[in-house]
Amino acid sequence: MSLSAEIIAVGTEILLGEITNTDAVTVAQALSELGINAYYQTVVGDNPERLRECILAAKKRADIIITTGGLGPTFDDLTKQVAAEAFGKKLVLSEEALKKIEGYFEQLGRKMTDNNARQAYLPEGCTLLENDWGTAPGCAIEDGGKILIMLPGPPRECIPMVKYRMMPYLQKLSDSQLVSHGIHIYGMGESEVESKISSFAETMENPTLAPYAKDGEVLLRVTGKAQTEKEADAITRPVIAKVEEILGDVVYGVDVPSLHAAAFEVLREKKLTLSTAESCTGGLCAKLITDIPGSSEVFFGGICAYQNEIKTRLLGIAPSLIEEHGVVSREVAEALARAACEKFGTDAGIGVTGYADPSSGDEKNPGGTVYVAVTLCGKTVSSKIYQPRGRELAKSRAAQEAFNLLRREARKL
Amino acid sequence: MSLSAEIIAVGTEILLGEITNTDAVTVAQALSELGINAYYQTVVGDNPERLRECILAAKKRADIIITTGGLGPTFDDLTKQVAAEAFGKKLVLSEEALKKIEGYFEQLGRKMTDNNARQAYLPEGCTLLENDWGTAPGCAIEDGGKILIMLPGPPRECIPMVKYRMMPYLQKLSDSQLVSHGIHIYGMGESEVESKISSFAETMENPTLAPYAKDGEVLLRVTGKAQTEKEADAITRPVIAKVEEILGDVVYGVDVPSLHAAAFEVLREKKLTLSTAESCTGGLCAKLITDIPGSSEVFFGGICAYQNEIKTRLLGIAPSLIEEHGVVSREVAEALARAACEKFGTDAGIGVTGYADPSSGDEKNPGGTVYVAVTLCGKTVSSKIYQPRGRELAKSRAAQEAFNLLRREARKL
Repeated sequence: MSLSAEIIAVGTEILLGEITNTDAVTVAQALSELGINAYYQTVVGDNPERLRECILAAKKRADIIITTGGLGPTFDDLTKQVAAEAFGKKLVLSEEALKKIEGYFEQLGRKMTDNNARQAYLPEGCTLLENDWGTAPGCAIEDGGKILIMLPGPPRECIPMVKYRMMPYLQKLSDSQLVSHGIHIYGMGESEVESKISSFAETMENPTLAPYAKDGEVLLRVTGKAQTEKEADAITRPVIAKVEEILGDVVYGVDVPSLHAAAFEVLREKKLTLSTAESCTGGLCAKLITDIPGSSEVFFGGICAYQNEIKTRLLGIAPSLIEEHGVVSREVAEALARAACEKFGTDAGIGVTGYADPSSGDEKNPGGTVYVAVTLCGKTVSSKIYQPRGRELAKSRAAQEAFNLLRREARKL
Repeated sequence: MSLSAEIIAVGTEILLGEITNTDAVTVAQALSELGINAYYQTVVGDNPERLRECILAAKKRADIIITTGGLGPTFDDLTKQVAAEAFGKKLVLSEEALKKIEGYFEQLGRKMTDNNARQAYLPEGCTLLENDWGTAPGCAIEDGGKILIMLPGPPRECIPMVKYRMMPYLQKLSDSQLVSHGIHIYGMGESEVESKISSFAETMENPTLAPYAKDGEVLLRVTGKAQTEKEADAITRPVIAKVEEILGDVVYGVDVPSLHAAAFEVLREKKLTLSTAESCTGGLCAKLITDIPGSSEVFFGGICAYQNEIKTRLLGIAPSLIEEHGVVSREVAEALARAACEKFGTDAGIGVTGYADPSSGDEKNPGGTVYVAVTLCGKTVSSKIYQPRGRELAKSRAAQEAFNLLRREARKL
């Protein structure tokens, strides 16, 4: 299958810069996973002539058109009308869609207004793509070998619609099934990852192996293609194992949402508890760990000790230690990690101290230098990072380093 | 001036869904401020034929084309070549641009490679748009009344290039100058803001007043147009004053980056110090305040007390208080705020307790309920929020509420 696709986002609010077109990212990633080539993305306002022009241009160039937005109940929602016309179809009432919308309002205990019923008019002969996350149904129409799929605009609806409606619909077109897994890597740059796996990856055609660099991490996407999902999944497994073997411990997880979530999982599995003592990251480590549902199983709490006096008074860091090594030092980071464990009575503690701001720093430690330490069951390890490209970036990089140390040490237990 | 513009983003990584096209938002907002209508946005890969097609289509439809991306030193950076050709120009070496690039490398103490010199080749007769934030210069070319402006893709370069190069360039085309200010509002919904200012705003033509809703806040953008910047600014001032008079204390600032930055500024001005005692927000308030450069002037530190036992042991919250009112209660939030002040010895303290996760909660307080309190110079105020649409959203909404209480109370002193 070597199909091509285009994405058209419909919405004046995108043209005005009021919202970011994140739906395009959602759809593009899905197309990419499916092995469908996308050559254009377009954004057009709630204007029927310009939308028609866009759809007709896309229909000439691509096999598949995906639209996002313009399916709602108000009069500026006109994607269905314009798309149906461009594909030579009429809009007809879908009883199935209507029932679903009525049910939605019943469940909320609200009366359905007439304009909501408008959403149940769909192009004749279309495939209904049920929307379980909002009121506006999606649909797919075909004409002369060309396919148009319409998805709702709000990301909360678009994201699941892509995953549970669009992807299965497009997979049916193909005689093969795709399965994709993400291998998450921290602590090795993209070019090093590439060079290490190149001899092995270059000869591979199925599954494919593609690297993406993002936020100080590398993601390797392994995509297998086969007759069934099970077979497709099966051929990715030896590749994942091989990559893990080659790269070793820099692989922090497969199909995991983040480094801190991976660290959290190891702690939860081993029934280990965690606390934090942060200076320059100012609560970021605590914030990240508490973003995870169920974090209270593992996380007891943290102290953000921004001033030296607080480090001493609340965490018992000796003023002489600060004086001898400087407050931004490996020694103080390690003392903070140990103090967290003691103060909170946890198995693990994270300690962070540094100069997050690029304009701060001293002779020994320029702005962007952060020391990170982890104490686990009495043993303390530490690390230094340097990220002078901005305050928030340095904080975020330091938190990643802390969670990576924590994950690595906890795995050894 | 009623010009029209189109935005073309060049980059295969956007088509693959690897990065979000945030440059389009930056450019679109700027065009919107300038009163230039944008009818289309396009994304195209690093492919000369398709890029040429996009530029030619845009040239037919619009007066102004803005491209982002594809100006770098590598061979897949081809925006300049293709755009120059589409506008009937040759690329010639710009000595000015070359000097600038050489200077950039000299400053870094690195040797400039030959491919970097490629970036100094610009379309003949173009206006150089100097890039002080990276190596690839931007430029503007004109042909038959049509204008094409090329900007670098990395947001760290694109954002300042839009503000300091593109906007002044486009303003020169106009015989009038625009000045825009943002009035930031928290604690009142968009529709209420609109209805309150409608009688006053509807008759207005210059300046214009446009509302935007975002992340629980409303932004009112006031844009004045006049012969000079000074005059344009002057006519916005009475409008800002009038809006502040009508809306009162829900206006938290004009041209300020965020609610927590506004709260921080009031504290800094009045030389007040701050600490935090957070439960469900898990360090988010501390994280936000420490994102602000210079935060150590105001912020002493915080305790994230995730477990009840920690609330008692580290912050002295009486177990009887927790038992009587429940840990998620106004009383415990207020006790936390007071405890922060005492523990850290600060003038102000933030206390937060709640059920951030939608799936958590009890009979009295469903998931998404958070109590927020602020103690300032001995006086404690508190507030309750309900945001059941997600863990991170509830945390973020609670932090906003805390900083708003803090700002409001500190202003009274």
